[in-house]
Amino acid sequence: MSKVKIDYSLYLVTDRKLLGERDLAQSIELAIQGGVSLVQLREKSISTKEFLNLALRVKEITSKYDIPLIINDRLDIALAVDAEGLHVGQDDLPMLKARELLGPDKIIGVSARTLEEALLAEKQGADYLGVGAVFRTSTKSDAKEVSLEQLEYIKKSVSIPVVAIGGINYGNIQQVKATGIDGISVVSAILVQDNIFMAAKQLKEIIG
Amino acid sequence: MSKVKIDYSLYLVTDRKLLGERDLAQSIELAIQGGVSLVQLREKSISTKEFLNLALRVKEITSKYDIPLIINDRLDIALAVDAEGLHVGQDDLPMLKARELLGPDKIIGVSARTLEEALLAEKQGADYLGVGAVFRTSTKSDAKEVSLEQLEYIKKSVSIPVVAIGGINYGNIQQVKATGIDGISVVSAILVQDNIFMAAKQLKEIIG
Ligand code: NI
Repeated sequence: MSKVKIDYSLYLVTDRKLLGERDLAQSIELAIQGGVSLVQLREKSISTKEFLNLALRVKEITSKYDIPLIINDRLDIALAVDAEGLHVGQDDLPMLKARELLGPDKIIGVSARTLEEALLAEKQGADYLGVGAVFRTSTKSDAKEVSLEQLEYIKKSVSIPVVAIGGINYGNIQQVKATGIDGISVVSAILVQDNIFMAAKQLKEIIG
Repeated sequence: MSKVKIDYSLYLVTDRKLLGERDLAQSIELAIQGGVSLVQLREKSISTKEFLNLALRVKEITSKYDIPLIINDRLDIALAVDAEGLHVGQDDLPMLKARELLGPDKIIGVSARTLEEALLAEKQGADYLGVGAVFRTSTKSDAKEVSLEQLEYIKKSVSIPVVAIGGINYGNIQQVKATGIDGISVVSAILVQDNIFMAAKQLKEIIG
């Protein structure tokens, strides 16, 4: 099987703790129906077994809609559920090790905050970059900010797709889009909204 | 490569937080010199990158002494450092999934507290069982106790090696040995001792 072609335009990253009583797999389904084109399961403080069971349920949903599923950090979970890819941050497995273990056909995304990190990841074979945080964010309190100018500069300097992440919402998505990036990645802008379907739909209408 | 033959007699399980200022890799080396026959890297609250770097350092030591290295829970780390095996608890990857991803040549150990868990793990192809906690333990506060009678019963009921774990120390190791198990697994009884080498040596002299 070769690598799937990815639509990075509206990339949902999960955080089950934002959902309160709502079910994560069901919430993801609503978000996909609203226009989410890619899903990253990013869960912390969870046992491997729970993560696996959650990933299996989410994989059923994403497969049903033919949406690629990317697992954050945990290559073991990505392998266990045969996810379409893995996203690694700078505290996770190194890009080259991830590629060695996953093979050429899986999508690997890398978080980058600087041009140096972006160029290195591209050179090492990353399929896309997650660049941010472009705005201050409550879901990842340690995230340093990357200016929109810096984001635009990184986008112009690499050939692989760039997804902007961090604090993006309905109010600021237009300015992020103006930098020329390939997609935006959101957590709260979809998952904390009362109407997840509509929240995704409204973002999708702007990002295209 | 086929599966390595394992000496389960004195099985060190790590917990870097017990070491204070002392270095984990160096402490493991002293423990191996004292008689530890198998090492399990079991670290929680650690980033994947830190776990990987720690595992790489420990692997250098264990390889130098030809001691197998088992990684607790994290199959991604086990793959990344080409460890000799993986240990899975009941909250980790299921045994069958671990075998599917690791292949037939890697050692897979499973934690079991009951005869039912032990028999299932054996049937599913576990290479050994970790049974406990046989005594109350401070390093794993949620561990339920397994009586020595129960341990002996499990040992008699399975054909794969059984390692006793949980609160075992110089004072009670003799009674554990008397149950006929294949080895004992210790954390504090080695790692919190001032003289790690001697602590391992004294335990080894009893367990043989
Ligand atoms: Ni072989």
